[in-house]
Amino acid sequence: MLRTHNCGELRLQDVDKQVTLCGWVQRIRDKGGIMWIDLRDRYGLTQLIFKEGSTPEELLEKARTTGREYVIQALGKVEKRFSNNPKIPTGEIEILVKDINILNPSKVPPFIIEDETDGGEELRMKYRYLDLRRTPSRQNLELRHRLMQETRLYLNQLDFIEIETPILIKSTPEGARDFVVPSRVNPGEFYALPQSPQTFKQLLMVSGFDRYYQIVKCFRDEDLRADRQPEFTQIDCEMSFVEREDIIRTFEGLIKFLFKQIRGIELPDFPLMSFDEAVKDYGTDKPDTRFEMKLKHLDSAAQGKGFKVFDQAELVVGISVKGCAEYSRKQLDELTDWVKRPQIGAKGLVYVKYNSDGSFKSSVDKFYTSEDLKTWAKELEGKPGDLLLVLSGDKESTLFAMSELRLEMGKRLNLLDPKVFEPLWIVDFPLMEWDDKVQRFFAMHHPFTSPHKEDMNLLETDPGKARANAYDVVINGVELGGGSIRIHDRTIQEQMFKALGFSKEEAQSQFGFLMNAFEYGAPPHGGIAFGFDRLCAMLGGADSIREFIAFPKNNSGRDIMIDTPSPIHREQLDELHIKLKS
Amino acid sequence: MLRTHNCGELRLQDVDKQVTLCGWVQRIRDKGGIMWIDLRDRYGLTQLIFKEGSTPEELLEKARTTGREYVIQALGKVEKRFSNNPKIPTGEIEILVKDINILNPSKVPPFIIEDETDGGEELRMKYRYLDLRRTPSRQNLELRHRLMQETRLYLNQLDFIEIETPILIKSTPEGARDFVVPSRVNPGEFYALPQSPQTFKQLLMVSGFDRYYQIVKCFRDEDLRADRQPEFTQIDCEMSFVEREDIIRTFEGLIKFLFKQIRGIELPDFPLMSFDEAVKDYGTDKPDTRFEMKLKHLDSAAQGKGFKVFDQAELVVGISVKGCAEYSRKQLDELTDWVKRPQIGAKGLVYVKYNSDGSFKSSVDKFYTSEDLKTWAKELEGKPGDLLLVLSGDKESTLFAMSELRLEMGKRLNLLDPKVFEPLWIVDFPLMEWDDKVQRFFAMHHPFTSPHKEDMNLLETDPGKARANAYDVVINGVELGGGSIRIHDRTIQEQMFKALGFSKEEAQSQFGFLMNAFEYGAPPHGGIAFGFDRLCAMLGGADSIREFIAFPKNNSGRDIMIDTPSPIHREQLDELHIKLKS
Repeated sequence: MLRTHNCGELRLQDVDKQVTLCGWVQRIRDKGGIMWIDLRDRYGLTQLIFKEGSTPEELLEKARTTGREYVIQALGKVEKRFSNNPKIPTGEIEILVKDINILNPSKVPPFIIEDETDGGEELRMKYRYLDLRRTPSRQNLELRHRLMQETRLYLNQLDFIEIETPILIKSTPEGARDFVVPSRVNPGEFYALPQSPQTFKQLLMVSGFDRYYQIVKCFRDEDLRADRQPEFTQIDCEMSFVEREDIIRTFEGLIKFLFKQIRGIELPDFPLMSFDEAVKDYGTDKPDTRFEMKLKHLDSAAQGKGFKVFDQAELVVGISVKGCAEYSRKQLDELTDWVKRPQIGAKGLVYVKYNSDGSFKSSVDKFYTSEDLKTWAKELEGKPGDLLLVLSGDKESTLFAMSELRLEMGKRLNLLDPKVFEPLWIVDFPLMEWDDKVQRFFAMHHPFTSPHKEDMNLLETDPGKARANAYDVVINGVELGGGSIRIHDRTIQEQMFKALGFSKEEAQSQFGFLMNAFEYGAPPHGGIAFGFDRLCAMLGGADSIREFIAFPKNNSGRDIMIDTPSPIHREQLDELHIKLKS
Repeated sequence: MLRTHNCGELRLQDVDKQVTLCGWVQRIRDKGGIMWIDLRDRYGLTQLIFKEGSTPEELLEKARTTGREYVIQALGKVEKRFSNNPKIPTGEIEILVKDINILNPSKVPPFIIEDETDGGEELRMKYRYLDLRRTPSRQNLELRHRLMQETRLYLNQLDFIEIETPILIKSTPEGARDFVVPSRVNPGEFYALPQSPQTFKQLLMVSGFDRYYQIVKCFRDEDLRADRQPEFTQIDCEMSFVEREDIIRTFEGLIKFLFKQIRGIELPDFPLMSFDEAVKDYGTDKPDTRFEMKLKHLDSAAQGKGFKVFDQAELVVGISVKGCAEYSRKQLDELTDWVKRPQIGAKGLVYVKYNSDGSFKSSVDKFYTSEDLKTWAKELEGKPGDLLLVLSGDKESTLFAMSELRLEMGKRLNLLDPKVFEPLWIVDFPLMEWDDKVQRFFAMHHPFTSPHKEDMNLLETDPGKARANAYDVVINGVELGGGSIRIHDRTIQEQMFKALGFSKEEAQSQFGFLMNAFEYGAPPHGGIAFGFDRLCAMLGGADSIREFIAFPKNNSGRDIMIDTPSPIHREQLDELHIKLKS
């Protein structure tokens, strides 16, 4: 080894030891007769000292040729410092340097490599290998490492077995878009990269492996929204001989364990909330329950009074925002602009100030009496001093806009405490959603999700009404994971594909291997998958998953550091039996 | 849970407990008034008993409707058996069944699901989910699981950090052939799947992560030889501030730890052997050192005596096979046929029987006197009673054939004891090999391998003479892993690319990101990667890696269970901006 110790481990009891350290020059302070270098590595910082008298002149000169981010090896003796630095664990000692070797010089880095950097995101991503030298970046990957180890520890203790499933699999049109890989050996044929190991983990249950997990890369060729990655990591799990409550108990346990181990936080038990309730109260199946401000339908109270916008709306829905009756005209205009942004998509915003004196002032005074507005306030559980906000329109987009507005108001009122975690299970999702455009049902989770036992017969008669035996974990409005009890019976799986508009032949050619497997003694089973990148971000207290991925791609799916995707050689295309479309 | 216990855990002390088990029907014995079912799961076998008098008639009838591989749930009471089965841990008890539920019936499986099966490999792979129910298959994946956990345990204790590197990377023409992935968002551009995380782990060293590992999928689009997989798993590691001996000590430690933990075997220290010595003594850089039978060059002793075949050969090389002088004509003919097979490729085989009476009988008696043959015997360290075998031809293919023949004779003499493990490090490889066909050098490992310090100047003057600072771990003739100290200096990396025939522009466009990174304080570093599938097979005492992969592909790179690769839809091709070549 080129070093005897790392830059984070020397202490007072090491004084007088001869040591060799290696690391990066973090900072140089040169006072002429005395000079310090802060030497940095993954483990910490150690101060090197050079002083006239003790340090030969040539060595001082050599030390002066180094600069920020030079890699050096320093030999010397551990000494007690005159003035301690209590901020760092090595702050009581320094190294009186006998010699240094410059292992590699460094150009001046394109941004400052400290906790606070002057590098913008684009620049930091292009030089990601320098960005990762910054303590916050390093700590993010260290957290990711620990989270992987703790996850495996928990699951191993419960007899889960880690099994790798293939990455080169088969393309299926159901679900998101696949990345595909042309086969050289089989002209005209392609592999696909897995969107999840779903069918393989179910086959492992058929094999009797009973409790499986994998921390695994998955791939989706979607149009990237902010903070989506074409390749992402998931904690993928499956169990046999279980019912919903068994999965819930096991994986609620995992999340609690991880919060405890990583953050020292004891999470409460996760309450169950039905999909319908979540949508009714919060307008979304990913409710942030750190604060109330529930949505209330105002249809009956607001319609039929001559206000056309409401009268023609499928839905009129409102919230009551505590203590905001004093909002100024300017603030209300700004809020109206906010809901009209394309990301939110509302056509307008109706407000009612419920003044502290009990009077009302609204943007729709023309159409509604004080008595009417009082009814609204009652419905919305508003009190004097509150601001009532009301949106209307078609159901889906209005609920979306209202749930976003609720979050925004929560943020403005500082109700989104980052130190508070409110987990819950969302259950009883619809099994399928009807797509008007293509006039068919789509599986809300995926086609392997079992209906509720009581709804099994609806598959044939009224599939849109069937509830899925599925469950999502949501914490603070973020969906961390989800899963379901699966179908394990060939006939039901066939009914499911039929309801989703597959012909018998299509179902057999795409998923025949799984349905065939169901005929050889498939056990009842179910599972779950957690977004690992998202889990890292939540436990790291950050919003962006990108900061927790060593080498992420940008929003165009491009790695700007290595500059890929990129053109390939004509001969490669030829070998793969494909041509570019001009 | 649908069960209270698994099929492997009940013992005498559980007698009288009411239990519920779930599992697969392994075997049914029906003696009319009494009937047994062996119920199997991942954890073991438990005997269920149904007997007239205790068991209601309807239940007996229901039990009779089950068959092999049915999944059932059985409720009953634990009882002491009358006659124990000492072969299984649950052999002292049985379950007197009160009720059963048939959770899923099973068709008759296409092959017998027991330790010894009647299924051929093709059939077992098509129904891999049934093959994995067999105890040997299950144990192989359990071993793989344990090997992963133990590997991480060892490396975590040494402060290695597990970091995921990307799967969608950039295609580079150096090395084996890449699998590529067309980009939808960037028309005409492609990602490539990594052959290894090589450049990324080096960038992590530049980032200061100092000790990295990952158990990671890698991809190579090679023409598949027996027991190669297009996707395979490797234990990938890298360290900073190290020299060769540090890597060797660290990873020899890993292999020793794994053998100890998994097999209870204490491996000896691994000796170092130079590439030149390995090739001279064994004809290969992957020598099986469980037995001697070293190769000896006979050029001087055998050439110039009028035997044209030898006289024209670049190399004449022989071995002495202990105690085989009595080989019959038929055996020798068969051996000659063996070396002439295309897999071995020799043109013929010269033999010399060194009879126990001290006389010689050879296939080249016309050209050589007894005195000549005595000289050969002396060179080959043959004794009376031994059989001398000699091959000749061009150096490369003759060494290959001779090393294969040596292994074959070792096998025939039972010298390849599967319980003996002889590890060693092969070091001092050539840095580059000249390829006559394309008239350029190729990196023997890869272009990031550092030359030996003493040979650094040869890069410019005589690159073919430079030795690599590289090392392979070989056990029993199997290369388990290999690595090198890397180049960490931009100038040397540029010289390397130049020696390999890259123009400055090519080097910059393909590996510019790495060479740029070297300019910002890259530490000295090196690493290693182990073939994880191969390591599993060795520790599992098997030859085929396929048995240790949950869902392997066949020799044409095809997964015959899910039937992939497969055609994709025209619309997918269109979206990806590619066409099939007709």
